Amino acid sequence: MSTTLTTLAPELAVSEWFNTPARLTLVGLRGRPVFLHSFQLLCPGCVSESIPQVQRIERIFGHTDLQIIGIHTVFEHHQAMTPVTLKAFLHEYRIRHPVGVDLADERFDTPITMQRFSLRGTPSSILIGRDGTILHQTFGVEEDLAVGARIAMALSASIPEVAATSPAQDESGCADGRCEVTRPSTSAA
Amino acid sequence: MSTTLTTLAPELAVSEWFNTPARLTLVGLRGRPVFLHSFQLLCPGCVSESIPQVQRIERIFGHTDLQIIGIHTVFEHHQAMTPVTLKAFLHEYRIRHPVGVDLADERFDTPITMQRFSLRGTPSSILIGRDGTILHQTFGVEEDLAVGARIAMALSASIPEVAATSPAQDESGCADGRCEVTRPSTSAA
Amino acid sequence: MSTTLTTLAPELAVSEWFNTPARLTLVGLRGRPVFLHSFQLLCPGCVSESIPQVQRIERIFGHTDLQIIGIHTVFEHHQAMTPVTLKAFLHEYRIRHPVGVDLADERFDTPITMQRFSLRGTPSSILIGRDGTILHQTFGVEEDLAVGARIAMALSASIPEVAATSPAQDESGCADGRCEVTRPSTSAA
Amino acid sequence: MSTTLTTLAPELAVSEWFNTPARLTLVGLRGRPVFLHSFQLLCPGCVSESIPQVQRIERIFGHTDLQIIGIHTVFEHHQAMTPVTLKAFLHEYRIRHPVGVDLADERFDTPITMQRFSLRGTPSSILIGRDGTILHQTFGVEEDLAVGARIAMALSASIPEVAATSPAQDESGCADGRCEVTRPSTSAA
Repeated sequence: MSTTLTTLAPELAVSEWFNTPARLTLVGLRGRPVFLHSFQLLCPGCVSESIPQVQRIERIFGHTDLQIIGIHTVFEHHQAMTPVTLKAFLHEYRIRHPVGVDLADERFDTPITMQRFSLRGTPSSILIGRDGTILHQTFGVEEDLAVGARIAMALSASIPEVAATSPAQDESGCADGRCEVTRPSTSAA
Repeated sequence: MSTTLTTLAPELAVSEWFNTPARLTLVGLRGRPVFLHSFQLLCPGCVSESIPQVQRIERIFGHTDLQIIGIHTVFEHHQAMTPVTLKAFLHEYRIRHPVGVDLADERFDTPITMQRFSLRGTPSSILIGRDGTILHQTFGVEEDLAVGARIAMALSASIPEVAATSPAQDESGCADGRCEVTRPSTSAA
Repeated sequence: MSTTLTTLAPELAVSEWFNTPARLTLVGLRGRPVFLHSFQLLCPGCVSESIPQVQRIERIFGHTDLQIIGIHTVFEHHQAMTPVTLKAFLHEYRIRHPVGVDLADERFDTPITMQRFSLRGTPSSILIGRDGTILHQTFGVEEDLAVGARIAMALSASIPEVAATSPAQDESGCADGRCEVTRPSTSAA
Repeated sequence: MSTTLTTLAPELAVSEWFNTPARLTLVGLRGRPVFLHSFQLLCPGCVSESIPQVQRIERIFGHTDLQIIGIHTVFEHHQAMTPVTLKAFLHEYRIRHPVGVDLADERFDTPITMQRFSLRGTPSSILIGRDGTILHQTFGVEEDLAVGARIAMALSASIPEVAATSPAQDESGCADGRCEVTRPSTSAA
C-alpha cells in the first residue's frame, strides 16, 4: 500500500484559475491522464521551449481525454509576476488550456503545489496516470519523441477500478488545501 | 483473410546493404516493430528533416527492440545517386543503422520496394508492427510527438503467436524478389 | 531645410531608465549611430525574435561606437507590464544595454516616444545616423544580413560637422517633453 | 608591392561550370565585389548552414553588383561527388548562381583552387573586393550580421582605377591553370 501512496500525485493548491469555468482538482480528474506543466511567465526556458511543447501536445493529443493543466509556480520576482500580468500573458501567447496560480506560502518563496511535488524549478512537467499516480516527472524540457511515447502509454492504460474508490480516500487526506499523501517539500529551486 | 493480406507489409527488395553484416528481411524481423525510412540522398527534405528525425528515434528508442531500416529509394537522378555516393553520404552524415539500396526495376524509374509499398515519394516512413502489418505509412515528415506515440504503441503490443507461422507462408509468396501479398505499384512519385 | 527636419529623429521621452547610470538623449548621442529597439515584454515576437536579434547586434558590434537602446513602449495591458515587471524581465533575459520606459500619455494608450516616431506596434526598430537622422525604421524583424549591412553603413559614415550645431537647434524645438520636428502620432498598433 | 600581391585573390581553376553561359574569372570580374563559397555536396555543414546562408545573401543583395560564385572543392570521396552528382544536387537544392568544379590535381587530394586559397576545408568563404584583393576569408560559417556588414562595406567601396591595369598584369602570372601570386598550398583539410 505504501508504494501506491508515495507515487500518488498530491493535490493542486490554486488561488486563482484561468481558462476554466470551474476549479480543477486532480482527484476530480481521476480516470483521465493529466499533463501538468509548471512554469513562470518570466522564465526564458518556459517561454521558448516548454510552452511551445505544451501547445504541440495540445494539438496532437487534442482528440484524446488527456487533460492539460498549467500551473504558475512563482518562486522569485513575486511582485513582477502577478495574476494581472499572467492574464495578459495567457492572452498574448494564446494559451487556452486551464492555468492555475499556485497558492503562495506565507513562510516560503516557493508556493504550495510546487512544494508538494518537490519541483526543482521551472519549467517542470508531471505526467499523471488515470489512477492518479505520477508516471513521470521532470525538470526542464524533454524531447518530443519521448514525451509523445509516454503520453501514448498513459492514454492506453485501462481506466482503473480504483478510480471509483480512491477519490474519497484521497479527499479525506486533504485538508486546508493540503494532502497527507506526500510530505510537503519546502526547498525552493 | 484479404484484410490481413492487404495490411501485411510487402517484403523489401534490396540490391546492396550498408551498416549490416547480414541481409535483412521483414519476414526475418517478424516479432519486432520496424521503422522503415525511405529516402534519397539528394532529397532536401530528407537531409534536413526526416534523417535528423530518424536519428532522434534511434537515440530515444535505442534501448528497445525497435528495428530502424533505411531504404534508398532512388526514382530520379539515378546516375547521381549511386551506391558509391550513398556509402560516402552515410559516412559523412554518421548514419549507423542498416540501409538498403532499393532494387532497380529495368522497366520503371521507381525501384521495386518503392513500388510494393506504393510510396508517393521521399521522404516516406512506414511503421510495421510485431505481426508484420503496416501500422502507419506516411509521405513527408510528421511531428515527433505523434511519431513517438505511435512507436510506443507498436512497442507495447504483445508478440503475436502468428509470428511463428506467417514467415513460411509469406516466403512462399515471394519469388524473383517479389512478393504476391501486394500488387506492385508502378507509379513514380 | 524641411527635408532635414522631417528625417531628424525626435527625442526620446522616458519616465525611468534601467541599465544606465545617467539618462540618455538622442541629442546627447549625436555623433554616434544609435540602434533603437521598441518592444513590450509580453509581445511574443519581441521575446522570440527581436530581442535575440538585438543581443546578436550587441555581440557583433560591441567593439564599435554603436549605441543600442531599448524602449519599453507599452500600448496595451498597461497594468500587466509595469516597471517592476520590466526590471525582472531584463534580469531574467540578461538584457544589459540601456532600456527606457516610454513616457505614458494620460490621454492615449500609446506612450509619447512611440507617438513621436509614429510606430505601428512592437517590435519596431529605428537606426539613427551619426547626424541624428533616421536612416531606417521598420515594424517587425528584418533579416540579419540586411540589418548588419545597414549598421555597417551607419558606422562607416563620417562624423558630421553638423553635430556641433544641430543639438542646440533641436533642443530649442523640444518643450514639455515633446519635439516639434515630427507631428505626434496617436494611433496605437 | 609584396603586400598587395599577398592579398590579391589568386585566380580560380575550374574544370566545369554550371549555371553560367560563360566561364568566369576573378580577373574578368575586377571592379565588382565577389562572394566565393567553397563547398562539397556531401558536407553536412555546407548543406545545413552555408548554402542556406549563400541563398539568403543572394536574396538580400540580389539588386547589387555583388557576384556570388560557388566552387565545388572536393578533397575527399572523389568518386562519390562527381559533376553528374553535383548537377543533380544544384537542381534539387535550387542553386541558381554560377558554380564551378574545382580543378583536380593529379598529385594531391586537394584541388587546385582550394590549394591556391589555402582553404582548410569546407565550408569556406572568401569575400573579394572590387580591386581583386581578399577582404575576408573564413573556414566555417559566420553570423549573418557580420557577413552582411562586410558585404555592405565591400559594395560601398569605390571602383578602383587599378581595375583597368591589374588584369593584364595578373593574367601574365597565370599559366598552366596556375597563378604565381600565391604559393599553392597542398594541405588537405
